[in-house]
Amino acid sequence: SPYNVGLLIVSDTAFQDNSQDRSTSKIEEFFNNLEQNPGYKIIKKDIVPDSIEQIQLKLKQWTENDDLKLILTSGGTGFSDKDITPEAVKPLLEKEASGIIHTMLSYSLKITPFAMMSRPVAGIKNKSLIITIPGSPKGAVENIEGIIGVLGHALKQIGNDSSRSLHKVE
Amino acid sequence: SPYNVGLLIVSDTAFQDNSQDRSTSKIEEFFNNLEQNPGYKIIKKDIVPDSIEQIQLKLKQWTENDDLKLILTSGGTGFSDKDITPEAVKPLLEKEASGIIHTMLSYSLKITPFAMMSRPVAGIKNKSLIITIPGSPKGAVENIEGIIGVLGHALKQIGNDSSRSLHKVE
Amino acid sequence: SPYNVGLLIVSDTAFQDNSQDRSTSKIEEFFNNLEQNPGYKIIKKDIVPDSIEQIQLKLKQWTENDDLKLILTSGGTGFSDKDITPEAVKPLLEKEASGIIHTMLSYSLKITPFAMMSRPVAGIKNKSLIITIPGSPKGAVENIEGIIGVLGHALKQIGNDSSRSLHKVE
Ligand code: NA
Repeated sequence: SPYNVGLLIVSDTAFQDNSQDRSTSKIEEFFNNLEQNPGYKIIKKDIVPDSIEQIQLKLKQWTENDDLKLILTSGGTGFSDKDITPEAVKPLLEKEASGIIHTMLSYSLKITPFAMMSRPVAGIKNKSLIITIPGSPKGAVENIEGIIGVLGHALKQIGNDSSRSLHKVE
Repeated sequence: SPYNVGLLIVSDTAFQDNSQDRSTSKIEEFFNNLEQNPGYKIIKKDIVPDSIEQIQLKLKQWTENDDLKLILTSGGTGFSDKDITPEAVKPLLEKEASGIIHTMLSYSLKITPFAMMSRPVAGIKNKSLIITIPGSPKGAVENIEGIIGVLGHALKQIGNDSSRSLHKVE
Repeated sequence: SPYNVGLLIVSDTAFQDNSQDRSTSKIEEFFNNLEQNPGYKIIKKDIVPDSIEQIQLKLKQWTENDDLKLILTSGGTGFSDKDITPEAVKPLLEKEASGIIHTMLSYSLKITPFAMMSRPVAGIKNKSLIITIPGSPKGAVENIEGIIGVLGHALKQIGNDSSRSLHKVE
Protein backbone atom coordinates (compact mmCIF):
# COMPACT_ATOMS: atom_id res chain seq x y z
CA SER A 1 0.00 0.00 0.00
CA PRO A 2 1.22 3.52 -0.80
CA TYR A 3 2.83 5.88 1.71
CA ASN A 4 0.26 8.26 3.12
CA VAL A 5 1.17 11.91 2.59
CA GLY A 6 -0.07 15.12 4.15
CA LEU A 7 0.35 18.27 2.06
CA LEU A 8 0.17 21.61 3.84
CA ILE A 9 0.14 24.73 1.69
CA VAL A 10 1.49 27.74 3.60
CA SER A 11 0.28 30.96 2.01
CA ASP A 12 -1.77 33.97 3.10
CA THR A 13 -2.97 34.37 -0.47
CA ALA A 14 -4.08 30.76 -0.93
CA PHE A 15 -5.64 30.72 2.53
CA GLN A 16 -7.89 33.63 1.57
CA ASP A 17 -8.68 32.23 -1.87
CA ASN A 18 -7.84 28.59 -2.49
CA SER A 19 -8.11 29.01 -6.26
CA GLN A 20 -4.74 30.78 -5.90
CA ASP A 21 -3.15 27.49 -4.84
CA ARG A 22 -1.47 26.08 -7.95
CA SER A 23 0.90 23.78 -6.05
CA THR A 24 -1.46 21.13 -4.67
CA SER A 25 -2.57 19.95 -8.10
CA LYS A 26 1.01 19.88 -9.44
CA ILE A 27 2.27 17.88 -6.47
CA GLU A 28 -0.65 15.45 -6.71
CA GLU A 29 0.05 15.07 -10.41
CA PHE A 30 3.70 14.32 -9.64
CA PHE A 31 2.82 11.55 -7.18
CA ASN A 32 0.10 10.13 -9.45
CA ASN A 33 2.51 9.88 -12.38
CA LEU A 34 5.23 8.31 -10.26
CA GLU A 35 6.12 4.77 -11.23
CA GLN A 36 7.24 3.45 -7.85
CA ASN A 37 5.96 0.65 -5.73
CA PRO A 38 4.81 1.47 -3.11
CA GLY A 39 3.77 4.87 -4.35
CA TYR A 40 2.49 7.89 -2.47
CA LYS A 41 -1.05 9.00 -1.75
CA ILE A 42 -1.98 12.45 -0.48
CA ILE A 43 -4.65 11.66 2.10
CA LYS A 44 -4.65 14.99 3.89
CA LYS A 45 -4.38 18.44 2.42
CA ASP A 46 -4.95 21.83 3.87
CA ILE A 47 -4.00 25.49 3.55
CA VAL A 48 -2.78 27.66 6.42
CA PRO A 49 -1.73 31.32 6.38
CA ASP A 50 1.92 32.38 6.89
CA SER A 51 1.61 32.02 10.66
CA ILE A 52 4.01 30.13 12.90
CA GLU A 53 1.17 29.29 15.30
CA GLN A 54 -1.16 27.94 12.63
CA ILE A 55 1.54 25.89 10.90
CA GLN A 56 2.59 24.35 14.21
CA LEU A 57 -1.00 23.67 15.27
CA LYS A 58 -1.72 21.82 12.03
CA LEU A 59 1.53 19.83 12.12
CA LYS A 60 0.88 18.82 15.73
CA GLN A 61 -2.58 17.58 14.76
CA TRP A 62 -1.28 15.73 11.72
CA THR A 63 1.51 13.99 13.67
CA GLU A 64 -0.63 13.00 16.67
CA ASN A 65 -1.44 9.65 15.20
CA ASP A 66 0.41 7.35 12.84
CA ASP A 67 -1.45 7.67 9.58
CA LEU A 68 0.90 10.10 7.80
CA LYS A 69 4.39 8.84 6.91
CA LEU A 70 5.33 12.00 5.04
CA ILE A 71 4.27 15.60 5.53
CA LEU A 72 5.22 18.20 2.95
CA THR A 73 4.79 21.89 3.64
CA SER A 74 4.84 24.05 0.51
CA GLY A 75 5.59 27.77 0.75
CA GLY A 76 7.15 30.22 3.15
CA THR A 77 10.78 29.12 2.74
CA GLY A 78 12.09 32.32 1.16
CA PHE A 79 13.52 35.59 2.49
CA SER A 80 10.50 37.89 2.71
CA ASP A 81 9.00 38.94 6.03
CA LYS A 82 6.12 36.49 5.71
CA ASP A 83 8.39 33.51 5.03
CA ILE A 84 8.46 31.73 8.38
CA THR A 85 7.77 28.07 7.56
CA PRO A 86 11.29 26.79 8.52
CA GLU A 87 11.04 28.69 11.81
CA ALA A 88 7.66 27.03 12.50
CA VAL A 89 8.81 23.53 11.59
CA LYS A 90 12.33 23.31 13.05
CA PRO A 91 11.35 23.51 16.76
CA LEU A 92 8.91 20.63 16.23
CA LEU A 93 11.51 18.22 14.85
CA GLU A 94 12.78 15.46 17.15
CA LYS A 95 15.45 14.47 14.62
CA GLU A 96 16.89 16.61 11.84
CA ALA A 97 17.78 15.14 8.46
CA SER A 98 20.85 16.92 7.09
CA GLY A 99 21.17 14.37 4.26
CA ILE A 100 17.74 15.20 2.89
CA ILE A 101 18.35 18.95 2.99
CA HIS A 102 21.70 18.52 1.24
CA THR A 103 20.22 16.29 -1.44
CA MET A 104 17.28 18.63 -2.15
CA LEU A 105 19.51 21.68 -2.39
CA SER A 106 22.14 19.96 -4.56
CA TYR A 107 19.50 18.74 -6.97
CA SER A 108 17.63 22.04 -7.11
CA LEU A 109 20.80 24.07 -7.59
CA LYS A 110 21.61 22.01 -10.69
CA ILE A 111 18.29 23.14 -12.16
CA THR A 112 18.40 26.79 -11.08
CA PRO A 113 20.74 29.01 -9.05
CA PHE A 114 17.60 30.50 -7.48
CA ALA A 115 17.36 27.34 -5.35
CA MET A 116 19.82 29.23 -3.14
CA MET A 117 16.83 31.26 -1.97
CA SER A 118 15.16 28.34 -0.26
CA ARG A 119 15.85 27.71 3.43
CA PRO A 120 14.68 24.10 3.80
CA VAL A 121 14.50 22.08 6.99
CA ALA A 122 13.63 18.38 7.25
CA GLY A 123 13.24 15.88 10.02
CA ILE A 124 11.09 13.53 12.04
CA LYS A 125 8.27 14.26 14.45
CA ASN A 126 6.37 11.36 15.99
CA LYS A 127 7.20 8.93 13.18
CA SER A 128 6.32 11.37 10.39
CA LEU A 129 8.98 12.82 8.12
CA ILE A 130 8.33 16.55 7.64
CA ILE A 131 10.00 18.34 4.72
CA THR A 132 9.61 22.02 3.80
CA ILE A 133 9.53 22.66 0.06
CA PRO A 134 9.13 25.94 -1.85
CA GLY A 135 5.77 27.46 -2.65
CA SER A 136 6.04 27.73 -6.41
CA PRO A 137 4.64 24.67 -8.22
CA LYS A 138 7.86 24.28 -10.21
CA GLY A 139 10.15 24.60 -7.19
CA ALA A 140 7.93 22.32 -5.10
CA VAL A 141 7.97 19.49 -7.65
CA GLU A 142 11.71 19.82 -8.32
CA ASN A 143 12.49 19.53 -4.63
CA ILE A 144 10.47 16.31 -4.30
CA GLU A 145 12.00 15.01 -7.53
CA GLY A 146 15.47 15.41 -6.05
CA ILE A 147 14.81 13.08 -3.13
CA ILE A 148 12.14 10.71 -4.46
CA GLY A 149 14.58 7.94 -5.43
CA VAL A 150 15.56 7.24 -1.83
CA LEU A 151 12.64 8.79 0.07
CA GLY A 152 10.73 5.51 0.35
CA HIS A 153 13.75 3.82 1.95
CA ALA A 154 13.88 6.54 4.60
CA LEU A 155 10.13 6.29 5.23
CA LYS A 156 10.41 2.51 5.58
CA GLN A 157 12.95 2.95 8.39
CA ILE A 158 10.84 5.42 10.36
CA GLY A 159 8.91 3.64 13.06
CA ASN A 160 11.02 0.54 12.62
CA ASP A 161 13.06 -0.66 15.51
CA SER A 162 16.31 -0.85 13.59
CA SER A 163 17.65 0.29 10.25
CA ARG A 164 20.08 -2.59 10.00
CA SER A 165 17.85 -5.30 8.63
CA LEU A 166 16.22 -2.90 6.22
CA HIS A 167 19.04 -1.05 4.66
CA LYS A 168 22.68 -1.82 4.39
CA VAL A 169 24.05 1.65 3.72
CA GLU A 170 23.27 3.24 7.06
CA SER B 1 20.65 52.53 -5.82
CA PRO B 2 23.15 49.91 -4.66
CA TYR B 3 22.63 47.54 -1.74
CA ASN B 4 24.28 48.92 1.37
CA VAL B 5 26.80 46.54 2.86
CA GLY B 6 28.48 46.36 6.26
CA LEU B 7 31.81 44.56 6.37
CA LEU B 8 33.07 43.38 9.74
CA ILE B 9 36.59 42.01 9.92
CA VAL B 10 36.98 39.59 12.83
CA SER B 11 40.64 39.25 13.80
CA ASP B 12 42.73 39.89 16.89
CA THR B 13 45.69 40.66 14.65
CA ALA B 14 43.91 43.18 12.44
CA PHE B 15 42.20 44.74 15.47
CA GLN B 16 45.61 45.51 16.98
CA ASP B 17 47.11 46.67 13.69
CA ASN B 18 44.70 47.44 10.88
CA SER B 19 47.46 47.37 8.27
CA GLN B 20 47.27 43.59 8.78
CA ASP B 21 43.78 43.56 7.27
CA ARG B 22 44.19 42.55 3.64
CA SER B 23 40.56 41.42 3.21
CA THR B 24 38.69 44.72 3.28
CA SER B 25 40.43 46.12 0.20
CA LYS B 26 39.97 42.86 -1.75
CA ILE B 27 36.26 42.68 -0.92
CA GLU B 28 35.75 46.34 -1.82
CA GLU B 29 37.59 45.74 -5.08
CA PHE B 30 35.31 42.76 -5.79
CA PHE B 31 32.15 44.82 -5.30
CA ASN B 32 33.56 47.80 -7.23
CA ASN B 33 34.40 45.62 -10.23
CA LEU B 34 31.03 43.88 -10.15
CA GLU B 35 28.86 44.55 -13.18
CA GLN B 36 25.43 44.21 -11.61
CA ASN B 37 22.60 46.63 -11.32
CA PRO B 38 21.92 47.43 -8.52
CA GLY B 39 25.41 46.88 -7.24
CA TYR B 40 26.77 46.83 -3.72
CA LYS B 41 28.32 49.61 -1.66
CA ILE B 42 30.22 49.04 1.57
CA ILE B 43 28.99 51.90 3.74
CA LYS B 44 30.15 50.56 7.07
CA LYS B 45 33.38 48.78 7.89
CA ASP B 46 35.01 47.92 11.14
CA ILE B 47 37.38 45.50 12.81
CA VAL B 48 36.66 43.58 16.01
CA PRO B 49 38.84 41.09 17.87
CA ASP B 50 37.97 37.35 18.02
CA SER B 51 35.43 37.94 20.78
CA ILE B 52 31.86 36.66 20.83
CA GLU B 53 30.76 39.68 22.89
CA GLN B 54 32.34 42.25 20.59
CA ILE B 55 31.07 40.60 17.39
CA GLN B 56 27.55 40.44 18.80
CA LEU B 57 27.66 44.03 20.09
CA LYS B 58 28.70 45.33 16.67
CA LEU B 59 26.13 43.25 14.79
CA LYS B 60 23.38 44.39 17.14
CA GLN B 61 24.35 48.02 16.52
CA TRP B 62 24.54 47.50 12.77
CA THR B 63 21.13 45.79 12.58
CA GLU B 64 19.32 48.26 14.84
CA ASN B 65 18.20 50.37 11.93
CA ASP B 66 17.46 49.59 8.31
CA ASP B 67 20.40 50.99 6.41
CA LEU B 68 22.36 47.76 5.90
CA LYS B 69 20.84 45.10 3.65
CA LEU B 70 23.86 42.83 3.82
CA ILE B 71 26.41 42.29 6.57
CA LEU B 72 29.50 40.22 5.86
CA THR B 73 31.77 39.06 8.64
CA SER B 74 35.22 37.98 7.48
CA GLY B 75 37.38 35.75 9.68
CA GLY B 76 37.00 33.39 12.58
CA THR B 77 35.22 30.56 10.76
CA GLY B 78 38.00 27.96 11.10
CA PHE B 79 38.90 25.34 13.70
CA SER B 80 41.42 27.11 15.94
CA ASP B 81 40.56 28.14 19.49
CA LYS B 82 40.07 31.77 18.50
CA ASP B 83 37.66 30.96 15.69
CA ILE B 84 34.27 31.79 17.20
CA THR B 85 32.49 33.92 14.59
CA PRO B 86 29.79 31.31 13.73
CA GLU B 87 29.12 30.85 17.46
CA ALA B 88 28.70 34.63 17.83
CA VAL B 89 26.45 35.04 14.79
CA LYS B 90 24.14 32.00 14.94
CA PRO B 91 22.30 32.96 18.16
CA LEU B 92 21.49 36.37 16.66
CA LEU B 93 19.78 34.99 13.56
CA GLU B 94 15.99 35.12 13.42
CA LYS B 95 15.97 33.02 10.25
CA GLU B 96 18.69 30.70 9.00
CA ALA B 97 19.49 30.38 5.31
CA SER B 98 20.52 26.79 4.55
CA GLY B 99 20.42 27.46 0.80
CA ILE B 100 23.08 30.16 1.04
CA ILE B 101 25.39 28.03 3.16
CA HIS B 102 25.02 25.12 0.76
CA THR B 103 25.68 27.29 -2.27
CA MET B 104 28.79 28.94 -0.76
CA LEU B 105 30.27 25.62 0.31
CA SER B 106 29.53 23.87 -3.00
CA TYR B 107 31.14 26.70 -4.95
CA SER B 108 34.17 26.99 -2.68
CA LEU B 109 34.76 23.23 -2.64
CA LYS B 110 35.01 23.26 -6.42
CA ILE B 111 37.90 25.74 -6.10
CA THR B 112 39.69 24.11 -3.15
CA PRO B 113 39.11 21.14 -0.84
CA PHE B 114 40.25 23.42 2.01
CA ALA B 115 36.81 25.04 1.85
CA MET B 116 35.85 22.11 4.08
CA MET B 117 37.55 23.99 6.90
CA SER B 118 35.04 26.81 6.91
CA ARG B 119 32.04 26.58 9.24
CA PRO B 120 29.71 29.20 7.70
CA VAL B 121 26.37 30.33 9.03
CA ALA B 122 23.95 32.70 7.27
CA GLY B 123 20.61 34.24 8.05
CA ILE B 124 18.46 37.25 8.74
CA LYS B 125 18.45 39.61 11.70
CA ASN B 126 16.15 42.60 11.66
CA LYS B 127 15.94 42.76 7.85
CA SER B 128 19.69 42.42 7.34
CA LEU B 129 21.20 39.31 5.79
CA ILE B 130 24.30 38.29 7.76
CA ILE B 131 26.80 35.91 6.15
CA THR B 132 30.05 34.66 7.68
CA ILE B 133 32.90 34.31 5.19
CA PRO B 134 36.52 33.21 5.72
CA GLY B 135 39.25 35.59 6.81
CA SER B 136 41.71 35.08 3.99
CA PRO B 137 41.24 37.59 1.13
CA LYS B 138 41.10 34.75 -1.41
CA GLY B 139 38.60 32.66 0.58
CA ALA B 140 36.49 35.70 1.38
CA VAL B 141 36.13 36.79 -2.25
CA GLU B 142 35.47 33.23 -3.48
CA ASN B 143 32.67 32.80 -0.98
CA ILE B 144 30.94 36.00 -2.12
CA GLU B 145 31.53 35.04 -5.75
CA GLY B 146 29.67 31.77 -5.19
CA ILE B 147 26.44 33.48 -4.17
CA ILE B 148 26.59 36.85 -5.92
CA GLY B 149 24.44 35.77 -8.87
CA VAL B 150 21.33 35.31 -6.74
CA LEU B 151 22.22 37.37 -3.66
CA GLY B 152 20.46 40.52 -4.90
CA HIS B 153 17.22 38.57 -5.39
CA ALA B 154 17.39 37.38 -1.77
CA LEU B 155 18.12 40.91 -0.53
CA LYS B 156 15.21 42.27 -2.54
CA GLN B 157 12.84 39.88 -0.73
CA ILE B 158 14.04 40.83 2.75
CA GLY B 159 11.78 43.45 4.26
CA ASN B 160 9.18 42.84 1.58
CA ASP B 161 5.80 41.63 2.62
CA SER B 162 5.74 38.68 0.25
CA SER B 163 8.16 36.84 -1.99
CA ARG B 164 5.49 35.81 -4.42
CA SER B 165 5.21 38.90 -6.55
CA LEU B 166 8.97 39.31 -6.65
CA HIS B 167 10.26 35.91 -7.45
CA LYS B 168 8.60 32.91 -8.94
CA VAL B 169 10.97 30.18 -7.80
CA GLU B 170 10.30 30.36 -4.10
CA SER C 1 53.37 11.38 15.47
CA PRO C 2 49.96 10.28 14.21
CA TYR C 3 46.65 11.86 15.22
CA ASN C 4 45.06 9.91 18.03
CA VAL C 5 41.58 8.69 17.20
CA GLY C 6 38.73 7.39 19.32
CA LEU C 7 36.24 5.12 17.56
CA LEU C 8 32.85 4.63 19.17
CA ILE C 9 30.54 2.02 17.66
CA VAL C 10 26.90 2.80 18.40
CA SER C 11 24.79 -0.32 18.07
CA ASP C 12 22.53 -2.37 20.34
CA THR C 13 23.44 -5.47 18.36
CA ALA C 14 27.21 -5.00 18.54
CA PHE C 15 26.97 -3.99 22.21
CA GLN C 16 25.36 -7.35 23.01
CA ASP C 17 27.72 -9.33 20.77
CA ASN C 18 30.86 -7.57 19.63
CA SER C 19 31.51 -10.15 16.90
CA GLN C 20 28.63 -8.36 15.13
CA ASP C 21 30.78 -5.23 14.79
CA ARG C 22 32.22 -5.30 11.27
CA SER C 23 33.00 -1.59 11.16
CA THR C 24 35.89 -1.26 13.60
CA SER C 25 38.20 -3.55 11.60
CA LYS C 26 37.32 -1.84 8.30
CA ILE C 27 37.97 1.63 9.73
CA GLU C 28 41.26 0.50 11.29
CA GLU C 29 42.25 -1.03 7.97
CA PHE C 30 41.45 2.28 6.22
CA PHE C 31 43.67 4.28 8.57
CA ASN C 32 46.46 1.68 8.48
CA ASN C 33 46.55 1.72 4.67
CA LEU C 34 46.48 5.51 4.54
CA GLU C 35 49.62 7.06 3.09
CA GLN C 36 49.60 10.36 4.94
CA ASN C 37 52.08 11.91 7.28
CA PRO C 38 51.11 12.29 10.07
CA GLY C 39 48.71 9.41 9.90
CA TYR C 40 45.96 8.33 12.28
CA LYS C 41 46.04 5.85 15.12
CA ILE C 42 42.92 4.49 16.83
CA ILE C 43 43.97 4.48 20.49
CA LYS C 44 40.52 4.13 22.01
CA LYS C 45 37.65 1.97 20.82
CA ASP C 46 34.43 1.01 22.45
CA ILE C 47 30.87 -0.06 21.75
CA VAL C 48 27.78 1.53 23.28
CA PRO C 49 24.11 0.70 22.72
CA ASP C 50 21.76 3.06 20.89
CA SER C 51 21.28 5.21 23.97
CA ILE C 52 21.62 8.98 24.12
CA GLU C 53 22.80 8.78 27.73
CA GLN C 54 25.48 6.18 27.08
CA ILE C 55 26.80 7.89 23.95
CA GLN C 56 27.03 11.21 25.80
CA LEU C 57 28.66 9.64 28.86
CA LYS C 58 31.36 8.01 26.73
CA LEU C 59 32.01 11.15 24.67
CA LYS C 60 32.28 13.25 27.83
CA GLN C 61 34.84 10.81 29.23
CA TRP C 62 36.79 10.72 25.96
CA THR C 63 36.92 14.53 25.65
CA GLU C 64 37.84 15.20 29.28
CA ASN C 65 41.55 15.19 28.54
CA ASP C 66 43.54 16.08 25.45
CA ASP C 67 44.67 12.74 24.09
CA LEU C 68 42.08 12.31 21.32
CA LYS C 69 42.20 14.74 18.40
CA LEU C 70 39.45 12.96 16.48
CA ILE C 71 36.44 11.00 17.67
CA LEU C 72 34.37 9.05 15.17
CA THR C 73 31.03 7.59 16.12
CA SER C 74 29.80 4.89 13.75
CA GLY C 75 26.11 3.96 13.62
CA GLY C 76 22.77 5.41 14.58
CA THR C 77 22.60 8.14 11.93
CA GLY C 78 19.61 6.76 10.00
CA PHE C 79 15.83 7.15 10.28
CA SER C 80 14.76 4.20 12.44
CA ASP C 81 13.54 4.67 16.01
CA LYS C 82 16.84 3.54 17.47
CA ASP C 83 18.91 5.96 15.40
CA ILE C 84 19.70 8.74 17.86
CA THR C 85 23.44 9.33 17.51
CA PRO C 86 23.14 12.85 16.00
CA GLU C 87 20.70 13.79 18.77
CA ALA C 88 23.23 12.59 21.37
CA VAL C 89 26.23 14.33 19.79
CA LYS C 90 24.83 17.72 18.69
CA PRO C 91 24.11 19.12 22.19
CA LEU C 92 27.71 18.33 23.21
CA LEU C 93 29.30 20.36 20.41
CA GLU C 94 30.82 23.73 21.28
CA LYS C 95 31.37 24.52 17.60
CA GLU C 96 29.61 22.99 14.62
CA ALA C 97 31.43 22.25 11.39
CA SER C 98 29.07 22.81 8.45
CA GLY C 99 31.94 22.46 5.97
CA ILE C 100 32.71 18.93 7.10
CA ILE C 101 29.09 17.82 6.93
CA HIS C 102 28.72 19.31 3.46
CA THR C 103 31.91 17.66 2.22
CA MET C 104 30.99 14.22 3.62
CA LEU C 105 27.50 14.32 2.15
CA SER C 106 28.65 15.61 -1.26
CA TYR C 107 31.26 12.88 -1.51
CA SER C 108 28.97 10.11 -0.30
CA LEU C 109 26.13 11.16 -2.60
CA LYS C 110 28.46 10.78 -5.58
CA ILE C 111 28.95 7.12 -4.58
CA THR C 112 25.35 6.29 -3.68
CA PRO C 113 22.04 8.16 -3.50
CA PHE C 114 21.41 6.29 -0.23
CA ALA C 115 23.84 8.70 1.43
CA MET C 116 20.73 10.90 1.67
CA MET C 117 19.66 8.67 4.55
CA SER C 118 22.47 9.75 6.81
CA ARG C 119 21.91 12.65 9.18
CA PRO C 120 25.52 13.59 10.09
CA VAL C 121 26.64 16.19 12.59
CA ALA C 122 30.22 17.29 13.20
CA GLY C 123 31.98 19.70 15.49
CA ILE C 124 34.37 20.39 18.32
CA LYS C 125 34.12 19.54 22.00
CA ASN C 126 37.04 20.36 24.27
CA LYS C 127 39.64 20.31 21.46
CA SER C 128 38.41 17.03 19.96
CA LEU C 129 36.69 16.94 16.58
CA ILE C 130 33.66 14.64 16.76
CA ILE C 131 32.14 13.33 13.53
CA THR C 132 29.18 10.96 13.20
CA ILE C 133 29.51 8.44 10.38
CA PRO C 134 27.14 5.66 9.28
CA GLY C 135 27.15 2.22 10.87
CA SER C 136 27.73 0.09 7.79
CA PRO C 137 31.42 -0.63 7.14
CA LYS C 138 31.12 0.59 3.56
CA GLY C 139 29.28 3.80 4.47
CA ALA C 140 31.64 4.46 7.37
CA VAL C 141 34.79 4.19 5.28
CA GLU C 142 33.34 6.24 2.41
CA ASN C 143 32.44 9.06 4.77
CA ILE C 144 35.99 9.23 6.16
CA GLU C 145 37.40 8.95 2.64
CA GLY C 146 35.46 12.04 1.60
CA ILE C 147 37.12 14.28 4.19
CA ILE C 148 40.51 12.65 4.76
CA GLY C 149 42.39 14.92 2.36
CA VAL C 150 41.81 18.03 4.50
CA LEU C 151 40.98 16.46 7.88
CA GLY C 152 44.56 16.68 9.17
CA HIS C 153 44.65 20.43 8.44
CA ALA C 154 41.50 20.91 10.50
CA LEU C 155 42.89 18.80 13.36
CA LYS C 156 46.13 20.79 13.30
CA GLN C 157 44.17 24.00 13.88
CA ILE C 158 42.20 22.67 16.84
CA GLY C 159 43.83 23.64 20.09
CA ASN C 160 46.00 26.18 18.32
CA ASP C 161 45.69 29.78 19.24
CA SER C 162 45.18 30.98 15.69
CA SER C 163 44.46 29.47 12.30
CA ARG C 164 46.23 32.26 10.46
CA SER C 165 49.80 31.10 10.70
CA LEU C 166 48.81 27.53 9.94
CA HIS C 167 46.54 27.74 7.03
CA LYS C 168 45.99 30.46 4.48
CA VAL C 169 42.57 29.46 3.17
CA GLU C 170 40.54 30.12 6.28
NA1 NA D 1 26.78 19.78 -3.02
